[in-house]
Amino acid sequence: MSSVTEATNSQSSNLSEITDEDIFASHIGGKLTVELAAPLETQRDLSIAYTPGVAQVSRAIATDETLAKRYTWTDRLVVVVSDGTAVLGLGDIGPRASLPVMEGKSALFKKFAGLNSIPLVLDTKDVDEIVNTLILLRPSFGAVNLEDISAPRCFEIERRVIEALDCPVMHDDQHGTAIVVLAALLGAVKAQKRDLHTLRVVISGAGAAGVACANILLASGIADVTVLDSKGIVSADRTNLTDVKIDLAARTNPSGRSGGAAEALDGADVFLGVSAGKIPEELIASMAPESIVFALSNPDPEIHPEVARKHAAVVATGRSDFPNQINNVLAFPGVFKGALDAGARRITEGMKLAAANAILSVLGDELSIDKIVPSPLDPRVAPAVAEAVAEAARKEGVV
Amino acid sequence: MSSVTEATNSQSSNLSEITDEDIFASHIGGKLTVELAAPLETQRDLSIAYTPGVAQVSRAIATDETLAKRYTWTDRLVVVVSDGTAVLGLGDIGPRASLPVMEGKSALFKKFAGLNSIPLVLDTKDVDEIVNTLILLRPSFGAVNLEDISAPRCFEIERRVIEALDCPVMHDDQHGTAIVVLAALLGAVKAQKRDLHTLRVVISGAGAAGVACANILLASGIADVTVLDSKGIVSADRTNLTDVKIDLAARTNPSGRSGGAAEALDGADVFLGVSAGKIPEELIASMAPESIVFALSNPDPEIHPEVARKHAAVVATGRSDFPNQINNVLAFPGVFKGALDAGARRITEGMKLAAANAILSVLGDELSIDKIVPSPLDPRVAPAVAEAVAEAARKEGVV
Repeated sequence: MSSVTEATNSQSSNLSEITDEDIFASHIGGKLTVELAAPLETQRDLSIAYTPGVAQVSRAIATDETLAKRYTWTDRLVVVVSDGTAVLGLGDIGPRASLPVMEGKSALFKKFAGLNSIPLVLDTKDVDEIVNTLILLRPSFGAVNLEDISAPRCFEIERRVIEALDCPVMHDDQHGTAIVVLAALLGAVKAQKRDLHTLRVVISGAGAAGVACANILLASGIADVTVLDSKGIVSADRTNLTDVKIDLAARTNPSGRSGGAAEALDGADVFLGVSAGKIPEELIASMAPESIVFALSNPDPEIHPEVARKHAAVVATGRSDFPNQINNVLAFPGVFKGALDAGARRITEGMKLAAANAILSVLGDELSIDKIVPSPLDPRVAPAVAEAVAEAARKEGVV
Repeated sequence: MSSVTEATNSQSSNLSEITDEDIFASHIGGKLTVELAAPLETQRDLSIAYTPGVAQVSRAIATDETLAKRYTWTDRLVVVVSDGTAVLGLGDIGPRASLPVMEGKSALFKKFAGLNSIPLVLDTKDVDEIVNTLILLRPSFGAVNLEDISAPRCFEIERRVIEALDCPVMHDDQHGTAIVVLAALLGAVKAQKRDLHTLRVVISGAGAAGVACANILLASGIADVTVLDSKGIVSADRTNLTDVKIDLAARTNPSGRSGGAAEALDGADVFLGVSAGKIPEELIASMAPESIVFALSNPDPEIHPEVARKHAAVVATGRSDFPNQINNVLAFPGVFKGALDAGARRITEGMKLAAANAILSVLGDELSIDKIVPSPLDPRVAPAVAEAVAEAARKEGVV
């Protein structure tokens, strides 16, 4: 393990040396290949893998469809599905431009969880068309990772795909982020020897990630969560809220604050930034002592981590060149592996909570305020997450 | 090359030794894997292939969509698409049961042409839904191999997908078969030193393969082609013909024969079987001297090749344990490679004819009446076909 950590650290200092030329050169022809699981060299190989031998397998599956899980690649195949409407911080750049991100995601599934994964990008923003396409393609895959789909459409798409399909489905921008944020917060309070449940948390951003983070933190027993969108605190007295925000307002902001970031952050314990907005230093300074700041906007955090660190006890970002990098890759490979290993029909809240705890568990004695989560390259994480998620799936009876 | 041929021959004798156990064991977990095109080991690798580096590539494609061809895997990706309605000789066994065949097809694309390929099987038989799904997924791939879709739906689906998409699309059961049949017929007449154009050809089967074979033989200058379906000779005086067969009747059977296989085969030069029907020995005996018999139904030919050989000068089947194995794998890998190499927007008749000639060209002096086509495992075939197809694409101005 230490070799990975060392490699990570020694490379971090070189990140600024990555040129556009390096990046484009490494993308020529894409980042994925399809390979044969077994050699196809002789007439005998051909007669087993293709005609006439393959007919035996097809005949068997025609008689018992569940055998497709065993005798095809689909049971270990995650499709990474996007319409390209909310790609990284770039927004609605379309399906073709989203492809390099989706290929990267598929590569990470293989690298960390050993799962096969392919990108499927859709040339439509229509919710019905996206949902129906996945229903029609259902026999082709084992699980669906929804990716970079804009809010609020992402909520309806995820809900309807989960309802329609009998397999693990997760919108990673929501739940992958939420799982890693919870893991990091558990790490922070453990390093600080304080109680998670008494924290007052402010989330900046009410999109896919903000809503999912609010949900997982509430589910973890944090009573006081306040969410900010571009117009200020999401509260029941606001008008023209979307359905998702009306629901959020009913479950958050228990002390009924109104106003903006200043009113929300005054005396708060945790700032969680999952929007592209900036937070002035004085607002971070106004938080309670020993505060925790997760400024996850990437590549430009809501506040520079060194500035935040002047006032906060624990600071995390999405960047690899500062301590405490919060990256979804800590969650999604293991979550899908665990769900598929267990044969889970869906991904439950309990499985997500188990994933967060498993991420933290890997650290053991390495935990400190400058290491509240493992490195994104730590190979111990995905197996630990997969095992915990599979166990939770069996406990919850979704297998 | 000889090593491949030897391997093929030495293995042929063992084909009967393949057990069901061998076949099922080799299918566990499927026949394909997705792998990383480049290592993802360090933080630097991660920063290039994923965030933040990947954003540069996505931004570039957002500005110029044509760059997706260069910087993603899609330009070399063939999707093998089926609804599972006409799988091998098994018929309508459904999309899940068709998957082992489609995985085998994808494996052959990689093995012979170096192309990436994934199966996409659809849980619908509705023509509109199949066509629309491929339109929605268009940014995800570079070419479409339609596979094992029943006639006459396959004709409409192929026509509409070709019209809708700006990329190579081919229903292999039609055109892959037709290309290899033409190559084999060219090989047969060359070995016999006779003229292709004067042949009288009888095709048994008016489904996907039969119609496409009739078309390519007519396009090659054979004037006298007669097609049989389960009711006899397809001719204009028949009632209740489908649109496809009405069209076929207008272009075939020039001497206006009516009746069945006996009437059609009496004095014919070529019998081409692409249905599951049987042909009695006496009908083969009734053909013209030096006759050519392609009994391609698989695994059970329309007539046993040793029986046919008593009367015919050249006999070919789909089986690997007799001379002259006619297998689509001689065509489709090279056809798609050539089309993608050239950047072709579609696959033309000229490209198909070029493919047939290229298959034959590989044989050179090896040509004989017992070797009218190369072995399906001959590694020279796909590159030769690809080169000829790419050249034809450029000549025809479809690039």
